[in-house]
Amino acid sequence: MKKVTVELGERSYPIEIGTNMCFSDSFADRIGKITGNESVLIVTDSFVKPSAEKLAALLKRKVAVKGIHVFPEGEQSKNFATVERICRKAAKLHLDRKSFFLAVGGGVTGDLTGFAAAIYMRGARFIQIPTSLLAMADSSVGGKTAADLPEGINLIGAFLQPQAVFIDPAFLDTIKSFNISLGFAEILKIAATFDADFFGLLEKNAFTLSGRKDPALFEEVLQRACRLKADVVAKDEKESSLRAMLNFGHTFGHALEKLDGFDRMYHGFGVSCGMYMACRLAEELGLQEHRDTVRLANALYKYNLPVYFPARFGAKDVYKAMLSDKKAAGGKLKFILPCGIGKGKIVEGIPKETVLAAMEKARSGYEKILP
Amino acid sequence: MKKVTVELGERSYPIEIGTNMCFSDSFADRIGKITGNESVLIVTDSFVKPSAEKLAALLKRKVAVKGIHVFPEGEQSKNFATVERICRKAAKLHLDRKSFFLAVGGGVTGDLTGFAAAIYMRGARFIQIPTSLLAMADSSVGGKTAADLPEGINLIGAFLQPQAVFIDPAFLDTIKSFNISLGFAEILKIAATFDADFFGLLEKNAFTLSGRKDPALFEEVLQRACRLKADVVAKDEKESSLRAMLNFGHTFGHALEKLDGFDRMYHGFGVSCGMYMACRLAEELGLQEHRDTVRLANALYKYNLPVYFPARFGAKDVYKAMLSDKKAAGGKLKFILPCGIGKGKIVEGIPKETVLAAMEKARSGYEKILP
Repeated sequence: MKKVTVELGERSYPIEIGTNMCFSDSFADRIGKITGNESVLIVTDSFVKPSAEKLAALLKRKVAVKGIHVFPEGEQSKNFATVERICRKAAKLHLDRKSFFLAVGGGVTGDLTGFAAAIYMRGARFIQIPTSLLAMADSSVGGKTAADLPEGINLIGAFLQPQAVFIDPAFLDTIKSFNISLGFAEILKIAATFDADFFGLLEKNAFTLSGRKDPALFEEVLQRACRLKADVVAKDEKESSLRAMLNFGHTFGHALEKLDGFDRMYHGFGVSCGMYMACRLAEELGLQEHRDTVRLANALYKYNLPVYFPARFGAKDVYKAMLSDKKAAGGKLKFILPCGIGKGKIVEGIPKETVLAAMEKARSGYEKILP
Repeated sequence: MKKVTVELGERSYPIEIGTNMCFSDSFADRIGKITGNESVLIVTDSFVKPSAEKLAALLKRKVAVKGIHVFPEGEQSKNFATVERICRKAAKLHLDRKSFFLAVGGGVTGDLTGFAAAIYMRGARFIQIPTSLLAMADSSVGGKTAADLPEGINLIGAFLQPQAVFIDPAFLDTIKSFNISLGFAEILKIAATFDADFFGLLEKNAFTLSGRKDPALFEEVLQRACRLKADVVAKDEKESSLRAMLNFGHTFGHALEKLDGFDRMYHGFGVSCGMYMACRLAEELGLQEHRDTVRLANALYKYNLPVYFPARFGAKDVYKAMLSDKKAAGGKLKFILPCGIGKGKIVEGIPKETVLAAMEKARSGYEKILP
């Protein structure tokens, strides 16, 4: 079992990583130690439901599991109505502010469950068991919870750190394989932003890692990704400065997701295209050499991630969508740009024309940069 | 102008009290100093709308007022749907996390607006202009925000301290007179719990105060009530101990409101009946002498507040409703009981029979105790 501690004073919590951990006999004891006699509501989606039910049966021996709330899978469930239903279920089961909301699922489940826990009786407690790679490596760390509004994703939410996170890669056996790629988009992102050595490991072992052929190496990658993010969160929980660095590729990526209507352009794909666009923009500004852009693009390619700025989106439309993002405070765009592998930088005040030109360059160049 | 500061470190804020303050020329400057160039969304209900529009016109000279969101007046608006509409309005007007939500209204408006501000982009900013006496003396102080679920009132919410609170008793000219009584229920509550001297002032000046015949004295009462609550909140913001003392009369009161279906039994009336029940229970337990119960009951009577436990409610039904309240953590009832005027005490573990007996005694005794 591998462990990372998120250091946030009295709100510190452990992230425990272990393959097949969640269905071992001792897991009910582990959760029971955290929840004591307090009530637990498990929240999951229709896709993860079978695993969540199996887990619930196992936990019931040692944990006061009061019920399971299942919502329809998908980003379209990530709204106020689902959060309200989770809270109402909790109220019907007489949960109080000492009770636990246990999320079993991907990023949407974690975000919604954490948000419900944050507002239920002005703040109950929360445990995460992420089942997608994206949630394991990124969204289950850091205490950001959210739901979408028709006007934009993650427009409402709260900061609530969980009591603990349990990462069991065995859950990945049940998900569609492209979800592995989506997770690696965020893992490559954090490595490319902060840790060239980690990036090298990901680059070198792409085949082994994306095929999950070496469980110990896979756990190590999760541990390194979580530790990098935990360190950032420990220094800047509420995103006043450093935490914004985690948004490498996200300014462009969110805009692509939005223009796509959250259809085929999944978050990881948007981030992947967004990182390539950010590389081209960094080149325009003289921050990064082309060979580092090539290195990142090749790594993304190895993990089956898209790189091109898709032809179906107009550069001006993407620019407009970026301006309407919640991060664009006061109508100003903020970009996280690479200055070589492992070094990110926050850049503001870039002229619109420069951004548009970089986007056009990100339309192609992919063939040329393949080795 | 009178002032109270809520001392919460970097989240400290001023409560300013002044009759006709909000429609003076300098008020737009005062708000403008707080909001700077940031966007402001005014939130109000259909009843307060005319005053809010007048205020908006005045503020626009110095403040970036982007719009007014008006929701239908009444507790039935205090739900998720209204919070979602406020957030969507904010998104449509391109508010960001530096923007301000300005509540102009009573307790429902303040609770909903604060909740929307708390979750919009995981936390925007908030200013309160309470227009009911209940909101001026109680709910606008302390940072509790909330909405109701069908399962119970205030079941969802967040803690968000405002940037400032502006209390102008002139707003009371527009409200129905029984709302003055509702406010005095909370004012008498905090005096009876913490400050015998203040209670004496309220007792002595009931006619002058309930008729608002002396503006300076009325402002002083608001200042003293706010200061008492601010001191409690400064010591225990998240209600882990001391803040629970503010719930004198509320354990019974909430149950009465709930059984009534939030119809005629307004919050202040519930709290008033609840305080009398708590007095009778305190007598049963030997904590308070009957003459102090009489003193409180007489004071409530002078402010046109109900005292009797209404015949239409069954004691056992009230007991059951209390158990389902969010404060009843782990199925245990917690009562705030008086030990003489100005001294409250938290008591747990009272036998059900004792509570039921005290409730039956609170059915009557009113005639006997009038002087």
